[in-house]
Amino acid sequence: MAKKTSLKRSTHGMINIDPLQRGGILTPKAREALAEWGDGYSICDFCPGKLEEIKKPPIHNFVYDDLPTFLGVDHARVTNGARESIFAVMHALSKKDGCVVMDGNAHYTSLVSAERAGLSISQVPVSDRPEYKIDPEGYADILEKKQNSGEKVVLAVLTYPDGNYGNIVDAKKVSTICHEYEVPLLLNCAYSVGRMPVSAKDLGVDFIAGSGHKSMAACGPVGVLGISEQYHDLTLKRSAYNKNKEIELLGCTARGATIMTLIASFPTVVARVAEWDHEVKKARWFSKAMGDLGMHQMGDNPHNHDLMFFETPVLYEISKHAKKGRFFLYKELKKRKIHGIKSGLTKYFKLSTYGLSDDDLRYVINAFDDIIATTV
Amino acid sequence: MAKKTSLKRSTHGMINIDPLQRGGILTPKAREALAEWGDGYSICDFCPGKLEEIKKPPIHNFVYDDLPTFLGVDHARVTNGARESIFAVMHALSKKDGCVVMDGNAHYTSLVSAERAGLSISQVPVSDRPEYKIDPEGYADILEKKQNSGEKVVLAVLTYPDGNYGNIVDAKKVSTICHEYEVPLLLNCAYSVGRMPVSAKDLGVDFIAGSGHKSMAACGPVGVLGISEQYHDLTLKRSAYNKNKEIELLGCTARGATIMTLIASFPTVVARVAEWDHEVKKARWFSKAMGDLGMHQMGDNPHNHDLMFFETPVLYEISKHAKKGRFFLYKELKKRKIHGIKSGLTKYFKLSTYGLSDDDLRYVINAFDDIIATTV
Repeated sequence: MAKKTSLKRSTHGMINIDPLQRGGILTPKAREALAEWGDGYSICDFCPGKLEEIKKPPIHNFVYDDLPTFLGVDHARVTNGARESIFAVMHALSKKDGCVVMDGNAHYTSLVSAERAGLSISQVPVSDRPEYKIDPEGYADILEKKQNSGEKVVLAVLTYPDGNYGNIVDAKKVSTICHEYEVPLLLNCAYSVGRMPVSAKDLGVDFIAGSGHKSMAACGPVGVLGISEQYHDLTLKRSAYNKNKEIELLGCTARGATIMTLIASFPTVVARVAEWDHEVKKARWFSKAMGDLGMHQMGDNPHNHDLMFFETPVLYEISKHAKKGRFFLYKELKKRKIHGIKSGLTKYFKLSTYGLSDDDLRYVINAFDDIIATTV
Repeated sequence: MAKKTSLKRSTHGMINIDPLQRGGILTPKAREALAEWGDGYSICDFCPGKLEEIKKPPIHNFVYDDLPTFLGVDHARVTNGARESIFAVMHALSKKDGCVVMDGNAHYTSLVSAERAGLSISQVPVSDRPEYKIDPEGYADILEKKQNSGEKVVLAVLTYPDGNYGNIVDAKKVSTICHEYEVPLLLNCAYSVGRMPVSAKDLGVDFIAGSGHKSMAACGPVGVLGISEQYHDLTLKRSAYNKNKEIELLGCTARGATIMTLIASFPTVVARVAEWDHEVKKARWFSKAMGDLGMHQMGDNPHNHDLMFFETPVLYEISKHAKKGRFFLYKELKKRKIHGIKSGLTKYFKLSTYGLSDDDLRYVINAFDDIIATTV
């Protein structure tokens, strides 16, 4: 048996600026749903044989009506996470000697998904510091080469935004290019769906992967998958052994409280997405305030997302002489009840301003100011 | 937006005899963990880059120490469910034109997993009513044929017990046979691990798949996977793109409160497994009491598991004339605050006695008695 270790979370009550966690904080309704549906397989009380068909609780409505409308797609499913959505699509589309083209800023899970699906990977190069940009034309370059060499590109992936710099690429341009080469495009929206407006139809993309626990105020792991009509039959193919069950979903996916928190938070999530402009404004204010303290935001600038990457030479200099060395920043922030920057980082780090109040953001800026001014 | 539909669970406070749900009821400690770790990605506060390596909360201890000991395996992982464990193994072992041999009582997810992994399926036949038995020698018959025809059997699967009759096959015999043909054996323990003692080493099996939400008092979806040393490298192969991440797990699996409820319930689960004999005794008492009312338990008899399948001609006869027709039983049970038998079933159904008190079981028997005596 395990040693007696605490099952308490030590970061409760702190200001959390971890990009991974800002969009996944439960709403009060989701907290209620979590308690209500916590027991294993509770959602299956009245299951007619398929997760999406459950009407009580209202999973059917959510999957067939609310979610497709929200994502701007023809069909939607709830999965165990964005990576599971991505893998399901890649696996369904996979061919012998097939290949995926993805942005150079892609999340590791896109690479591992392709690897698991037996697909080779070509990446669109990222521009140099400080912007780390993906040029949509980079997709054309690779797809042209692949076409000429006869390689089978089964899917293109664009990370929207990426998880390092929070850069938002012109997805419409990328989808237009991909379709010229008859390659479907999947948008990895783990950091966008649930934070900012995203419509597959408006952007012309064929698939959308989103994350419930990352950006839709849900208890994880849970994700969403949007699919265009054209790829419905291929992606959601039914089992030859059980006509009710979709092969790539292994029948049922988020068969528990995770889907119920997603549903419970959904009205709040729809409402908060409409406030996205305000989130961008806050992020830009924060970026400028950090710049004034000698910490420079990389990536798109002005920035278009709450996830931001900063180079912080001023903190790095301090770390060289600080008593705690490179751990000084983590300790100083912890002292001030701020969490979310990995322990040991001082040269650069990423953070998120998502959903934080102006007061909290000012408090964080003042904390950095104070740390820079007082740490010896 | 969805119509205003309730997110309340209507079956709270009822006696639940649904086999799917009896083993997944949260312990008080799991309820605490659910609230504590409900926010998306909360467990990643101090992540060093891999789910299993997280020491705070104590996931590392659980995955590397507690779980392997409990399952009697060399290596263990937490997955998104038993089906995801099964698919991960099949996908890792899959070969072109490969085949899986499984029992004829296998759960649909074993079939869909094989289908998704591109493997054909051969099933060991099930004996006729009333026992629906799997003869271990059936594995030898099929494996012998496959060997002679040169077909590549990449894996054998035994459902332990199966989810229809709750039959327990001699897994040791099956594993010995499989190993004679150099085929690894996976035990699908969705209905056993967390209820009854199961040791991969004692049974000689190579893989164990278990379900947190079905049998380990956890919030779903979450599962466990046990792996013998021999298959460690193949099943848990690391990504070429990110050496920290295991391909078949897409990096991290149960990245949320689901794993924390599993960990929180674990001491209680370990303790309850030791009381298994008492559970079998209760099941046998119940089976006999049902028999006395004219409802006959199929499968192993005397029975060795809490999951039981009953043929109930006496209820079927009533349904022919009852006011509500075939829905009478569901309504009558609901009236008596008993849940878990699918609406519309009267000819046969399955149920579970797991974790129910003697008083509750007597109450259920009396309810059936009363329904039979009074329904017109």
